[in-house]
Amino acid sequence: MRTVEPLHLRLLRVLRDEGAMSRAELGDRLQMPRPRLLAELERLVSLGYVAEAGLAASRGGRRSTLVELSPSLRFAAVDLGASSIDVEVVNARLEPVAAYAEPADIRNGPKVTLQRVNELLHKARVDGAYERLHAVGIGVPGPVSFRDGVPVSPPIMPGWDRFPVRELLTREHGCPAVVDNDVNIMAIGERHGGVAHSVDDFLFVKIGTGIGCGIYLSGDVYRGTDGCAGDIGHIQVDSHGPMCSCGNVGCLEALFSGAALAREANTSARSGTSPALAERLAAKGVVTARDVAEGAVEGDVTCIQLIRDGGRRVGGVLAGLVSFTNPSMIVIGGGLAQLGHILLAEIRSVVYRRSLPLATGNLPVVLSELGPRAGVAGAAVLASDVAFGEAS
Amino acid sequence: MRTVEPLHLRLLRVLRDEGAMSRAELGDRLQMPRPRLLAELERLVSLGYVAEAGLAASRGGRRSTLVELSPSLRFAAVDLGASSIDVEVVNARLEPVAAYAEPADIRNGPKVTLQRVNELLHKARVDGAYERLHAVGIGVPGPVSFRDGVPVSPPIMPGWDRFPVRELLTREHGCPAVVDNDVNIMAIGERHGGVAHSVDDFLFVKIGTGIGCGIYLSGDVYRGTDGCAGDIGHIQVDSHGPMCSCGNVGCLEALFSGAALAREANTSARSGTSPALAERLAAKGVVTARDVAEGAVEGDVTCIQLIRDGGRRVGGVLAGLVSFTNPSMIVIGGGLAQLGHILLAEIRSVVYRRSLPLATGNLPVVLSELGPRAGVAGAAVLASDVAFGEAS
Repeated sequence: MRTVEPLHLRLLRVLRDEGAMSRAELGDRLQMPRPRLLAELERLVSLGYVAEAGLAASRGGRRSTLVELSPSLRFAAVDLGASSIDVEVVNARLEPVAAYAEPADIRNGPKVTLQRVNELLHKARVDGAYERLHAVGIGVPGPVSFRDGVPVSPPIMPGWDRFPVRELLTREHGCPAVVDNDVNIMAIGERHGGVAHSVDDFLFVKIGTGIGCGIYLSGDVYRGTDGCAGDIGHIQVDSHGPMCSCGNVGCLEALFSGAALAREANTSARSGTSPALAERLAAKGVVTARDVAEGAVEGDVTCIQLIRDGGRRVGGVLAGLVSFTNPSMIVIGGGLAQLGHILLAEIRSVVYRRSLPLATGNLPVVLSELGPRAGVAGAAVLASDVAFGEAS
Repeated sequence: MRTVEPLHLRLLRVLRDEGAMSRAELGDRLQMPRPRLLAELERLVSLGYVAEAGLAASRGGRRSTLVELSPSLRFAAVDLGASSIDVEVVNARLEPVAAYAEPADIRNGPKVTLQRVNELLHKARVDGAYERLHAVGIGVPGPVSFRDGVPVSPPIMPGWDRFPVRELLTREHGCPAVVDNDVNIMAIGERHGGVAHSVDDFLFVKIGTGIGCGIYLSGDVYRGTDGCAGDIGHIQVDSHGPMCSCGNVGCLEALFSGAALAREANTSARSGTSPALAERLAAKGVVTARDVAEGAVEGDVTCIQLIRDGGRRVGGVLAGLVSFTNPSMIVIGGGLAQLGHILLAEIRSVVYRRSLPLATGNLPVVLSELGPRAGVAGAAVLASDVAFGEAS
C-alpha cells in the first residue's frame, strides 16, 4: 500500500531543486493553503533547514521576501568503485563545494576504505567546506540492504558482508547516513540532474569493470526483495561462453566488461590483428578498454569490431529487459560508455530489432549526461533526502 | 510521487477481503478514529455499498452490530483467451454466483467477441444472478493501455487495436469497466486469493498458447510505459532457433509454448520416437500439449524430455529476470502448468543454478493455486476496485 510523501519532504525538495522562491510561489508549487505553509516554514526555519533569502524582484506593489534552504546545509556524497573513491561535499542545492577523487582497492576492506573516506571528509572540513555535515550518502559496488544500511554478500568486496557502513558513518560524522548500490546512485543522479530528468521509468545500465543496472519504476528506484535487483552482469548470453568469476559460464560481463575487453584487446594486440592495439602494447606493455576506444576513433577495424561485439551482447540482454519492463528510456553509463557512439549504435540496433515494436516505438537509448559524476550526484540526492526526512 | 489510498477504498477492500465485522474491529484494522469511521460508514451505507449485517457473537456486555458490503453488489469478471471466453458474476466477497466458459476465437474480432460476452452476462441476469452490475473487469490476450481501456497493437488479436472495449462495456451495462492484459489479471487473482497472497514482489509466468509474465512490484501490478511490460515470450533464447510468429528467430515462445509443444509432439509421434504419442496420434489424428503431459505421467521418455527441454528454456529466461528484479516468488500458471512437477523441477534447477545466490536464497518457484480460474478471479478484483473507487 502506498504512502503519501510528507509535506516537509516535498517542501524541502522543491527548494533544493528549484532554489529560492517566494512563499506565494511555494504555495502554488505545493498546492497548499497559506496558513499551513507558513506554519510549516516557520517550523523548518526554527530547525535550521530554511532561511530568509532577501527580497524578490519587484513586480509592482510590495516586494515579497524569498525563502531558501539554509546556506550552511552540507551533505557528503561518496561513490566507492572497485578501484576508486570519489568524495564530494555539496551545499543545499547539491552543488559541490569540495571534491576528491583517488584510486583505491575496494578489496582492502571496509575499515581501511572507510577510514580513507573519513580522512577526505575531515580534510574538507579543515579546508572550510563545512562546519558540520547534515547527512552522508554512499554507494558501494555490490548488493546492499537499503533498509539495514549494510552490503549483503557483495561478490567483489571481501570483508564487507553485513559490515555496518551506515552505523560507522553516522557515528563518525554525527549525522544520518544512507547506503546504496553504486549503480542505483548513478541512476538517482542521472534522474535528478542528468538525461533522465523527471523520467519515471528507465533503466540505467552501467558498463564498467562489471555490468549492472539501476531500475526506476513509477518514479522510484526498485531495489528488489534482497537489494540485488539489477544484477544483469550475470545473465547468461552464451551457454558455450567463457567462465565467469561467479562460477557460471557465458555471463554477460564475462563476455563484455572492462576486464573482458582488456583481455581481448591484449590478445588482439599480441596476435597482431590490430595495429592500433599492437602499437599501444609495445609502448605501454599492457592495453586496456581505453586503448580500444582510442583505436576505434582512429578507425582500427579490430577495435571497432570488439566494441560492436560487446554492444551486440549488451543489446541482446537489454532487448529482453525492454520486453519485460517496457521502460521510457535506457541510459548507458560507466567507464565503457567512453566507447561512445559505436557502442550505442550497436545496442540500439539490437534493442530496436528484437524488442516488441510497441515497447521501442518511442524509446531513447542514450549516454549518461553526468558521466563519472553520476554516482556522487546520486549519493548527494540520497543524503539530502535522508536529512530532509529527519525534519519531521 | 506516491499517492495515499483513500479511506473509502481501504474500508471497502477490508470488508471485501475479510467479510462482515463490527465497527470496533473495522476501526482497529484501519487504525482510524471512531467519529471519522462512523461518518464514512454512514456515507457508504447511504450510497448502497455497505449494509448492517446483524449482531456479532456475544462476548459479554452489549452485542455490537456488524457491517458488511451490500449483499446486492455484483461484479462481472471476464477472461478472454486466444481460444476461450470465461465469464463470472461474483458477489461482494468475490464469490461466483454464475459462471460460463466456452471456446471462442479471439480473431473473430471485438464486436463478435464482446457481443457474446454481453449475451452471457444478460443470460446471467435472466437467470437471477444479479439485478444490476456495479462494475465489469475484463482481461484480453494482448497489450493494453490500462489508462485508456483499449488494447494496443495486440499481435494475436486482429481488429482489436485501440477498440474502445471499456467504453462499450460501460455503455452496455451502465457501470464502470476496467480492461487489463490477461496475464496481469491472472497475477492479480493469484495475489488476492491464491499462492501469492499478500506477496508484494513476484512474477506470474503464464505458459499457454503463448508465454507472458505478470509483474508485481512493491504491491502493485507493473504495466510499463505502454502497457506491454511482461512480454517475455519474445525474448530470444536461441539465435539459431526456429522462426517465431513475430518475425524474429528463436523467441522463447517459438521454442516452448502450447503451439510449439504440439508441433514437436506431432513430429515425435510421426517419427515413432515416442510410443505414447504415436498411440494417441493413431487414435485421434492429432496430438496436443495435453497428450505430452499424459505421456510424461505414463513415463514416456520423449514426453519427459520435451517438458524438460521447455523447462530449461523458460528457466533460462527466468534466471535472468530473477537477477534483474530479485522477486520474492515465482508463480507458474497457464495451460502448460498442467505439465506439473517435471516442468517445475527443471525451471527451479536452472533458476537456482544461474541466478545470483542472494536472489535465490529464499525464492519459491511454485504452481498457480487458482489454475484456470486465476484470470476471472483477478478480473473480479479489478472490477470491485474500480467500483469502490467510484464511491468517493
